Amino acid sequence: MSSRSRVASTLRRAKVNFGNFTRPIPYFAQPRWQSTASTEDAEGVAKGTTGSSKTIKFTSETYPSIKRDSRFAEITEEHVNHFRSLLGTESAIIDGVTRDATDDIEPFNGDWMRKYRGHTKLVLKPASTEEVSQVLKYCNDNMLAVVPQGGNSGLVGGSVPVFDEIVISMSRMNQIRSFDEVSGTLVVDAGCILEVADGYLGERGHIFPLDLGAKGSCHIGGNVATNAGGLRLLRYGSLHGSVLGIEAVLPDGTVVDDLSKLRKNNTGYDLKQLFIGAEGTIGIITKVSIICPQRSKAINVAFFGLESYEKVQEAFREAKGQLSEILSAFELMDRQSQDLVHRVTKNKRPLESEYPFYCLIETSGSNTEHDSEKLEKFLEYVMEKEIVLDGVVAQDTTQVKALWGWREGVPECLGHWGGTYKYDLSIPISELYSLVEETRAKITDAGLLGEDEEHPVVDVVGYGHMGDSNLHLNVATRRYDKEVEKILEPFVYEWISKRSGSISAEHGLGLAKKNYIGYSRSDTMIRLMKQIKDLYDPVSGIHLL
Amino acid sequence: MSSRSRVASTLRRAKVNFGNFTRPIPYFAQPRWQSTASTEDAEGVAKGTTGSSKTIKFTSETYPSIKRDSRFAEITEEHVNHFRSLLGTESAIIDGVTRDATDDIEPFNGDWMRKYRGHTKLVLKPASTEEVSQVLKYCNDNMLAVVPQGGNSGLVGGSVPVFDEIVISMSRMNQIRSFDEVSGTLVVDAGCILEVADGYLGERGHIFPLDLGAKGSCHIGGNVATNAGGLRLLRYGSLHGSVLGIEAVLPDGTVVDDLSKLRKNNTGYDLKQLFIGAEGTIGIITKVSIICPQRSKAINVAFFGLESYEKVQEAFREAKGQLSEILSAFELMDRQSQDLVHRVTKNKRPLESEYPFYCLIETSGSNTEHDSEKLEKFLEYVMEKEIVLDGVVAQDTTQVKALWGWREGVPECLGHWGGTYKYDLSIPISELYSLVEETRAKITDAGLLGEDEEHPVVDVVGYGHMGDSNLHLNVATRRYDKEVEKILEPFVYEWISKRSGSISAEHGLGLAKKNYIGYSRSDTMIRLMKQIKDLYDPVSGIHLL
Repeated sequence: MSSRSRVASTLRRAKVNFGNFTRPIPYFAQPRWQSTASTEDAEGVAKGTTGSSKTIKFTSETYPSIKRDSRFAEITEEHVNHFRSLLGTESAIIDGVTRDATDDIEPFNGDWMRKYRGHTKLVLKPASTEEVSQVLKYCNDNMLAVVPQGGNSGLVGGSVPVFDEIVISMSRMNQIRSFDEVSGTLVVDAGCILEVADGYLGERGHIFPLDLGAKGSCHIGGNVATNAGGLRLLRYGSLHGSVLGIEAVLPDGTVVDDLSKLRKNNTGYDLKQLFIGAEGTIGIITKVSIICPQRSKAINVAFFGLESYEKVQEAFREAKGQLSEILSAFELMDRQSQDLVHRVTKNKRPLESEYPFYCLIETSGSNTEHDSEKLEKFLEYVMEKEIVLDGVVAQDTTQVKALWGWREGVPECLGHWGGTYKYDLSIPISELYSLVEETRAKITDAGLLGEDEEHPVVDVVGYGHMGDSNLHLNVATRRYDKEVEKILEPFVYEWISKRSGSISAEHGLGLAKKNYIGYSRSDTMIRLMKQIKDLYDPVSGIHLL
Repeated sequence: MSSRSRVASTLRRAKVNFGNFTRPIPYFAQPRWQSTASTEDAEGVAKGTTGSSKTIKFTSETYPSIKRDSRFAEITEEHVNHFRSLLGTESAIIDGVTRDATDDIEPFNGDWMRKYRGHTKLVLKPASTEEVSQVLKYCNDNMLAVVPQGGNSGLVGGSVPVFDEIVISMSRMNQIRSFDEVSGTLVVDAGCILEVADGYLGERGHIFPLDLGAKGSCHIGGNVATNAGGLRLLRYGSLHGSVLGIEAVLPDGTVVDDLSKLRKNNTGYDLKQLFIGAEGTIGIITKVSIICPQRSKAINVAFFGLESYEKVQEAFREAKGQLSEILSAFELMDRQSQDLVHRVTKNKRPLESEYPFYCLIETSGSNTEHDSEKLEKFLEYVMEKEIVLDGVVAQDTTQVKALWGWREGVPECLGHWGGTYKYDLSIPISELYSLVEETRAKITDAGLLGEDEEHPVVDVVGYGHMGDSNLHLNVATRRYDKEVEKILEPFVYEWISKRSGSISAEHGLGLAKKNYIGYSRSDTMIRLMKQIKDLYDPVSGIHLL
């Protein structure tokens, strides 16, 4: 059961019933839903498109300019034997060094976007912080390169090996350690799956302050290491604010024991912050303590059609002002993105007509009636002022799930034709959508976009977390194509740089963007980052900087 | 005009009127208010008790074990001349080196608690980041020790010199640089006074996500450097989450240009986090960019009497559950703290009877009626269940201000008899008040607590931000006394350490607690902090570690 449907079952008890209001909402068409059975959840679609990673080119072939650092040792039987004795059980090692283990190892060598593929022959699955420490110390002493891996749901190639780096999988460290119902503080192992933690919290009236499409497979350690943003940031803020403590292991084996459960602790430098967003490059997070808010009793979801991006901005300003403390999501989807979802899922669209832009709004609060009244008032206002042209409000949990499907389904549906060029950008809100229009124009002008197989590009779409000024510019393609790439880069990065935006809002740098950091960070900042990398890991540094 | 009264004037328009509810609230006594004129605001009282700092012992005499590091140079006329030419205008320097400037310099040498007093003879007031950079570079090259100073409202002696460190005052860098009403992003100079920024935001429908007693004098740069917590943390979270960007200058003059205005930016290490809570020890913050929430239209304040700390915990759990997204403060005050406020202010008490514990609850939301209904329901519940014995709800802005006065007035009133031993602690909620009881018992048993001049201690009180598990244990004294100190330390720190609490929840380490960090941090963490200090400031390090 997905986290979304758990949220929904809460809603069922606190059913929103707009029929109770004094006047009906005639301007809202009744949603014309298909059976939800045809709406595959994000993870399912993702798995479906991934297929066997063996058909994918090696990263080392795709990017021949990336060379293996010859200072790193090759893995020998002796190394494997050491790890075997260290980790004890057979299940802790996938050994492709002394035997053939290709099939078992391949999932650890590739990513779900089918973009990256490594050559690793060894996967280690430590079961404790002490084991992580001993593994890293040994690797450090013996010049063995490593790559930490959580749920491997990243989008920038940061969790898969490029060459023969040892994969350190956190999957066996997956326990929930403690939860304090009064303070809301949860302590979990890094390998705990986000959805598992959120389910555990749900049974205790709380919610994990982070939600994202990959919740069924991503690890909390990976979420924290990549400073994941996702769907709840607008309401619950960034992990830099909600993570209270971290236990991590440095490359030399030092255990950073900073697993505070306190909301406030001003005793010296807040070093745990360095690990949030460092993408595993200065250490491996082994445990996380995090403050979790109360789960809302009432959840409402509305879906609108709008005629222009100007109207989208107006709707956002009104939603912030009128829905204020109960606004929990404000998501943007353009017509092109919804057309592609429709083509893939064949689901009936929520609205009768088509519009250039769509928004999804979610409210969550403690009082169903109050929330419905606020939302009703807001909807009346935006309809009367013609900010919004049409819309629906979910009437039950099935509809909540289905409406979210039109937003959460975008990334997976885009992959339907082959692959997707993905850009995850922070841009000042007023200019946010211009980039999509300019990119689409450039690709169209170059004759690369079209309906048939001759054209590599299916469409250029924009969607994302409007509430956080976070645009996902995606180019759905039939095949990865050098002509398309030449148009996209460095154009997109230069465009962002001119507006002091971020070339990676929430996905991180990974391998995909490590060479482009200069578009979002000054030379001074890059120098200071290198200093930190050198401080904790003077030897290595494959994935960042 | 204080920030509180601005909040209050918002409330007047959206007046809470419990008379509209179907049944009256007979169990709530009408508040018996005195004129607010007799309730001095925090800052006024503080100034009143500070007096001339010249009567205070030098820190170097109080703590003879602290020695001046002989590697630092003495300030010469040549140095002063250099700074004079660098900073240009006469108003940028207070020069007690080549002339007598004692009176002008004394305010920079002392703190408002009258606990610390330094020997500085030179105060520099740079007007730009470039000037800060040049000053620091020169000091670094010439081995001149410095101490950055903001509003000098700290409680741990972190912003005043001990010996002859040059004071770098940020008071001339006090501009508001920009505000984006759509995203809520504010960019300010470090020397901007918190109340000024909050007033500016108030006129634009927003609020600074931090509020504290010293708002009329503290600088935002100092707030960020000390990771100030205060009254709004429960609702708006820590500065680690809300600060989006920082510009800072390292000891060698390097300008850390990390002043992002983006809500999301995952491009490498989040180095700005290191400066939040570093107390100025690795660099001077010169600008801050921060995300500011919408200002709430409706604000309600209620004040309760409770019979035990167990009931306080129950009330907190209920408030979190029932008031949820509109709860903006849950403050605890014990009887002893309120007795002392009463003795100093002579104000009429809010409740008719006296109780062992009092709580102040604030709600803030976007809809007056909804909020009042939620609060009413909550109050009915806690009265019916006898969790709360009596209470009042503020009916207008004067009452809102007066009720807050009973909480915000505590620290100042405690200083009335001479001085206060202050402990700012994070403790798991269930044990939070036991420390006050144990401390009071120890001091009483030692015969140190009493009504007359012979007894150094007036009373031992506990109050604080219950919502953040943050206790202020305060010992009001007639004079600072070695016998009292012997009972308090290391007892308090050991007690905290046993419960994995924090010896400094929000005030920081400063000079007061720098030797006690080991009670809240492991040897490994202290070693890693020293590494960071060495990285950015290999030479100096007077105030921390």
